Amino acid sequence: MTYDLTMLGKQAQQAAFQLAQLETKKKNALLVAMAASLRKHAAEIIAENKVDLKQAAGLAQAFVDRLTLTEERIEQMAQGLEKVAQLPDPLGNLAGGWVNAAGLQIAQQRVPLGVIGIIYEARPNVTVDAAALCFKSGNAVILRGGKEAFRTNLKLVEILQAVLQQAQVDVAAVQVVKDTSHEDAQQLMQLTEYLDVLIPRGSARLIQAVVKNAKVPVIETGAGNCHLYVDKTADLEMAEKIIINAKCQRPSVCNAAEKLLIHQDVAAAYLPEIAKLLWEQHVELRGDKEVQAILGAKVKPATEQDWYTEYNDYILGIKVVPSFAEAVAHINKYGTKHSEAIITNDYERSQQFLAQVDAAAVYVNASTRFTDGFEFGFGAEIGISTQKLHARGPMGLQALTTTKYTIRGNGQIRK
Amino acid sequence: MTYDLTMLGKQAQQAAFQLAQLETKKKNALLVAMAASLRKHAAEIIAENKVDLKQAAGLAQAFVDRLTLTEERIEQMAQGLEKVAQLPDPLGNLAGGWVNAAGLQIAQQRVPLGVIGIIYEARPNVTVDAAALCFKSGNAVILRGGKEAFRTNLKLVEILQAVLQQAQVDVAAVQVVKDTSHEDAQQLMQLTEYLDVLIPRGSARLIQAVVKNAKVPVIETGAGNCHLYVDKTADLEMAEKIIINAKCQRPSVCNAAEKLLIHQDVAAAYLPEIAKLLWEQHVELRGDKEVQAILGAKVKPATEQDWYTEYNDYILGIKVVPSFAEAVAHINKYGTKHSEAIITNDYERSQQFLAQVDAAAVYVNASTRFTDGFEFGFGAEIGISTQKLHARGPMGLQALTTTKYTIRGNGQIRK
Repeated sequence: MTYDLTMLGKQAQQAAFQLAQLETKKKNALLVAMAASLRKHAAEIIAENKVDLKQAAGLAQAFVDRLTLTEERIEQMAQGLEKVAQLPDPLGNLAGGWVNAAGLQIAQQRVPLGVIGIIYEARPNVTVDAAALCFKSGNAVILRGGKEAFRTNLKLVEILQAVLQQAQVDVAAVQVVKDTSHEDAQQLMQLTEYLDVLIPRGSARLIQAVVKNAKVPVIETGAGNCHLYVDKTADLEMAEKIIINAKCQRPSVCNAAEKLLIHQDVAAAYLPEIAKLLWEQHVELRGDKEVQAILGAKVKPATEQDWYTEYNDYILGIKVVPSFAEAVAHINKYGTKHSEAIITNDYERSQQFLAQVDAAAVYVNASTRFTDGFEFGFGAEIGISTQKLHARGPMGLQALTTTKYTIRGNGQIRK
Repeated sequence: MTYDLTMLGKQAQQAAFQLAQLETKKKNALLVAMAASLRKHAAEIIAENKVDLKQAAGLAQAFVDRLTLTEERIEQMAQGLEKVAQLPDPLGNLAGGWVNAAGLQIAQQRVPLGVIGIIYEARPNVTVDAAALCFKSGNAVILRGGKEAFRTNLKLVEILQAVLQQAQVDVAAVQVVKDTSHEDAQQLMQLTEYLDVLIPRGSARLIQAVVKNAKVPVIETGAGNCHLYVDKTADLEMAEKIIINAKCQRPSVCNAAEKLLIHQDVAAAYLPEIAKLLWEQHVELRGDKEVQAILGAKVKPATEQDWYTEYNDYILGIKVVPSFAEAVAHINKYGTKHSEAIITNDYERSQQFLAQVDAAAVYVNASTRFTDGFEFGFGAEIGISTQKLHARGPMGLQALTTTKYTIRGNGQIRK
């Protein structure tokens, strides 16, 4: 018999009622207490983590590295909890308010979503991070991490739950799926009666599997095939700085630039200098025929597939475009609607780019690397949404809330 | 071979690009021109409608009535278009804006969702209404109405498209599915590559079928098992007015009251008077044992199933509750999270009710019948969302938009 998640769902729903009413002060105190308890139980956590690591022996180095917990990493988790404690509580804020024709005072108030499911890989830091953000925003959470981190996750959640229990808060506020079979992930994705939303965190493959299989509404945090378009009026020096930053500062992340489009009027003048800087940073360049004609055989030919690809690596696709309109059309066709930038000194072009490019974040004269909850000033990030419903772009605590209309009257009836 | 909707999706997506850039003035002029054209072609519309009606002969009277178009109803449709023309355009409005630590000007700007699918029943007025709201909010729409209204819908959309064509706007802005098989509805629900959202409008059965089968994100417009809770401090006269209004003004709609909860301290004093008024309005009462003890055998016993049921009729379930907490618990258990009201003169209870009841609209001392886009002051209504993601409660034009971050810099790079 597979493990039944229905009970977890029911318990989470019950806990959500209490959680929604918890005072901010109490939530913050509990987050700080959770941090202290993680530090206090660091040795136990590391012991459980060692059992997981033994099972994971032989897996890829990077995978094992992400799974590994040290005292230092546990300290980072604890500090993360303390930071979330310091963030403003989004609950109760008004998204709007007015008096209608009948004299009703209508307020659109932020409230928790209810129960959030998180499906992620074998990264124990996500366990604590997601639990903290869901708790602070008044949501119960059901965590389903990668099976390789199973023992570690159980221990982490046990520690968090002990803090809740001591404060007489329903421990079902933070739950972990106590089995890690494929069937259980499937069951979690179908738990529409209890889960208000499911957020997958991790690789594109994981996210697409959840988007494809879930019946519960999903917030898709997606891929970034981000473009930089150097317009013919661009300042070359500014363009260079932005290109190097967007491509090289951290190539493995979704807001890194993957493609460079350059207007044909400045391609011959600008490309050699830009390419020189990129090559100095060991970036592989793949270009269309025009780019190859300018830069020579060191540039590999870009295939149709290249234009769609998020490399997450030191690779940049480059294309010469005959016009602004073709740059926009290329971005809207091949982009993933994540982050797109123009470098220009033409006011009208800047306005058109912001209006015509369909993406979560559209930039004029800045690096796409700023698409990030912390850089935006949210103080936290649960992910970057590339879908259009509910939340789009970097998601902080507010993305984990919904609204309800609270309406105060004095006997109004509808005529 | 079934009809292939992929082409419709592609064309809609292309049209959406042009639509998103259309000036408000032009959209409004086109909506007014559409109204004029409907009036001009009223005879043609009625002729096509007669063909549909001939096929529908023998179906239920209410069904045939909703399908039937007259000159007067076409005039109402035309006026509806003119009203949408007068509404403020939500596009470009800022949901927020700030300068981040790096000096970037970040603005969260309203933009269209893109392509919206509408699945509805054989009600030709929805064809024109949905097309108008989607067009005004800059979205391309694919309409899939009930098959019994097929000829009527084709004619209506042909008239709207002719107006677009004359103004050189892509006619794929408003499209209708030109087949009405079950397979086509299924295909529309899976068209994730082209549809940004699917909105079912109609019966609970239709909506649940779409929610269950769609891969495209759905905005669920749902059922209303709405409660009125008469607290022990309630003003009896106010309670009576609100109960009669919420139950009897229009019992067939989702914001009508279906249940009355009454605090045990006032049940014996209040119920006989309230029941008298309800019986005068020919409302059937179903109650628990306490209610029957007070009101006698004229009250039918309420079953467990009754507490879950949205009657949409002159029926009211009544329950005596021993405490405020039990009233809230009952509502949160049996309600559909649509609209719930308390009648009270106790400040603390009013605050607790607003905080603890989980619903799209929670009222103090007012009729639940106000949960409506027009009553809220939105000037339009695409439906009332009972889900928590994206939009909750009455949805006007803004619910048909998403946001994108437009970010203006002067060369910022991430450190």
